[in-house]
Amino acid sequence: MIQPRTLKGFRDQLPAQALARENILDIARRVYRSYGFSPIDTPSLEYLEILTGKGSEETDKQLYRFKDHGGREVGMRFDLTIPFARFCAQHIATLGVPFKRYHMATVWRGENTQRGRYREFMQCDFDTIGTTSPLADLETVLVVHDLLSAIGLEQFTIRVNDRRVLSGILEKFNLIEISTDVLRLLDKRGKVSVDTLSKEMQNIGVSQDSSRVLLEMAALEGNADSVLSQLHSLVDGSTLGEAGVESLRSLIKQVHDVGVPDGRITVDPSIARGLDYYTGIVLESFLDELPALGSICSGGRYDNLAGLYTKQQLPGVGASLGIDRLLAGLEELGKLTGIETPAEVFLPYFDKQYLGQYLKIARALRCAGVAVEFFPEPKKLGNQLKNAAKKGVLFALILGSDEFESGSAQLKHLDTQRTDTIHWQGKESNLVKEVQRALASNHQNSIAFRSLQ
Amino acid sequence: MIQPRTLKGFRDQLPAQALARENILDIARRVYRSYGFSPIDTPSLEYLEILTGKGSEETDKQLYRFKDHGGREVGMRFDLTIPFARFCAQHIATLGVPFKRYHMATVWRGENTQRGRYREFMQCDFDTIGTTSPLADLETVLVVHDLLSAIGLEQFTIRVNDRRVLSGILEKFNLIEISTDVLRLLDKRGKVSVDTLSKEMQNIGVSQDSSRVLLEMAALEGNADSVLSQLHSLVDGSTLGEAGVESLRSLIKQVHDVGVPDGRITVDPSIARGLDYYTGIVLESFLDELPALGSICSGGRYDNLAGLYTKQQLPGVGASLGIDRLLAGLEELGKLTGIETPAEVFLPYFDKQYLGQYLKIARALRCAGVAVEFFPEPKKLGNQLKNAAKKGVLFALILGSDEFESGSAQLKHLDTQRTDTIHWQGKESNLVKEVQRALASNHQNSIAFRSLQ
Repeated sequence: MIQPRTLKGFRDQLPAQALARENILDIARRVYRSYGFSPIDTPSLEYLEILTGKGSEETDKQLYRFKDHGGREVGMRFDLTIPFARFCAQHIATLGVPFKRYHMATVWRGENTQRGRYREFMQCDFDTIGTTSPLADLETVLVVHDLLSAIGLEQFTIRVNDRRVLSGILEKFNLIEISTDVLRLLDKRGKVSVDTLSKEMQNIGVSQDSSRVLLEMAALEGNADSVLSQLHSLVDGSTLGEAGVESLRSLIKQVHDVGVPDGRITVDPSIARGLDYYTGIVLESFLDELPALGSICSGGRYDNLAGLYTKQQLPGVGASLGIDRLLAGLEELGKLTGIETPAEVFLPYFDKQYLGQYLKIARALRCAGVAVEFFPEPKKLGNQLKNAAKKGVLFALILGSDEFESGSAQLKHLDTQRTDTIHWQGKESNLVKEVQRALASNHQNSIAFRSLQ
Repeated sequence: MIQPRTLKGFRDQLPAQALARENILDIARRVYRSYGFSPIDTPSLEYLEILTGKGSEETDKQLYRFKDHGGREVGMRFDLTIPFARFCAQHIATLGVPFKRYHMATVWRGENTQRGRYREFMQCDFDTIGTTSPLADLETVLVVHDLLSAIGLEQFTIRVNDRRVLSGILEKFNLIEISTDVLRLLDKRGKVSVDTLSKEMQNIGVSQDSSRVLLEMAALEGNADSVLSQLHSLVDGSTLGEAGVESLRSLIKQVHDVGVPDGRITVDPSIARGLDYYTGIVLESFLDELPALGSICSGGRYDNLAGLYTKQQLPGVGASLGIDRLLAGLEELGKLTGIETPAEVFLPYFDKQYLGQYLKIARALRCAGVAVEFFPEPKKLGNQLKNAAKKGVLFALILGSDEFESGSAQLKHLDTQRTDTIHWQGKESNLVKEVQRALASNHQNSIAFRSLQ
């Protein structure tokens, strides 16, 4: 006998978790598609040199790598960006620009396992490649907004910044050469006291005045117009900085004009993200009730996606939904229902002579888009119902000889135990209509909704 | 510069392929869910001993295996059955039976690459565990039927058999001890002449009479009742064989009674499948126009799923959609559209002063469930339209200053080039209604449909 177990850092997804995940992936797919983003996929395995080309010590160390049957050095992808860069280098001439794609797939990292960190997880990226238009930036922000709304989140904030604002200020203060160090210190805001940060800044050569201004800038918050005015005076004279502020101003105005509720998208000058990579807009998204969770959807604009693999300059903008972090947040907020089945109606089987009728009723309901679980054995009704209730089926549709003879049925709400009698006069179409009516009035606004239909 | 390339046996999925695949996966998910099957997932990597436990030389050889960062011997899953067996051994006590799950995921096999064979492909399995009820067999057949219908296939046949019929006949002929060899020869039918087969049977010890009967049995076809009557006389006296025939008879009757069109599901005594594994019903499914493609959806009933990992006996029944083979078949039949985008409407951007209006219109359409691609740069209209038509967008919604002033719009069908004028009087809701009407009347019954909604 072999001991059944999973590897450290890996996990099975049981029905309740898998349903919630599938439903969120489905929502993401719909939202990405509604803007015309197309799906792509790339192999899980790549030539090792493709994956290590980036030269990041951390990812290189975490890479799952081995020799394949043909003796090739291969690795399992650790993100979707490197494979997408390789993909674009090979296919962009065929596909043409602007090219808009989404990619939802598994990645692997041999990290030290901590609370909520796994060695196998999913990423859900979308990007627009081959255009520098600010409208692609706007679209990115709108996609993130629509995605978080469609998931059913009510309290979230998308915080945007523009890397050029930071660069502009650093330029004015003659700090461009140590910008990476300065920004690393700015990123510590909230974790370390302002005094400590100010001292550490002076240690790396930032004047006291400059460090004060930088820390004040990063702390700016509130009304977007007011934040933007203050940023404007800070970058005054720097072409780069002014362009950044103007672009944020225009973005905020457009977001407002198309009808996104105020407060959903704010300007946050402290957001820097991937300093070596992003060059324009940057964004992070937070659940208002769980600020400590961190950003659940992040991204930004970059100048050149695929420089490692092609001479063609490919600017782009995009973002990525952190679905595992989001699911953890939803669980913490009690927004996952724990439902273990997509079935909306449970049809018990307890009178053998009506088997043909049960089968026809189940079929009629399914054809009408209702997910029905029919119990395969004529066991005790009580046990069948208990089982269905435990899994989270919404209704039981109970028919025995009395019901078949009188053309009625009992529709039992398994949570409240309330039972209504349906009169269908032996016509399946009547029964279907009554069940659909009951389902419509019991529609649940939960994340793990039952049906994709 | 690193050469951008994929590994031998691996491939990128460009938008047209990825869209078709995603749409079929979505259909499979809906059909599986409509019967109350729940999703699960398992890790891509397992302890090597879990995967090699089955002891099949072929899969062991093809396994991608390596040592992970902790020095553990690990392997990448080569099917979804072994991980599911391990999963059930660990979780079935919590989940309870009958347990119905589907699992759609990637598997890897280091096979020799041939035409249409890849080292990374998807499987889409569904199974009902923990019941021996023939109703679970019936449900399996119905799910396969609904799945192939929902995909939009019109000409397909599901061929069913029962392993007990074969066993019954072999029992009667005293051939149980060499059953594996006999069935292997029967499987060659169609590829090798009947005379050759008959001779080969006699070589392994089957009498001339028995081999004639076996080959006649395997060749039975046509009306189910007639096939079943003939099978009945062949197995006469064998309890096992008679049970098999009766169970097929009952299945065919029920399938007919619930309204499945005649001819969709036939009895085919030549279907044996996985001899060591299946013990009851077995099924294969074929596209009538492409018999040489092989079965696109196969499965059956087995006595014990997880014997390697637990003492608990877990009988079950299930099937698996071969999505890669199906996609190859659909391509051969010209049923894949080659559409590269989910966008139904292309909104060109060519008059800068109306940017705010364009954005509002795009947003209103998306809120109404219409997938809209808005071009991010105010380029020449002709180029924008050419680009959209190439990708396969259905309509272009063209608005310039004339249209905005007169409250009209041009709706151009990009395939036929036919243009209709819409009058929307500056009210977005009117425009949305007109566009939805045009889309509804242009609904395409193609596999690569545009939207999940």
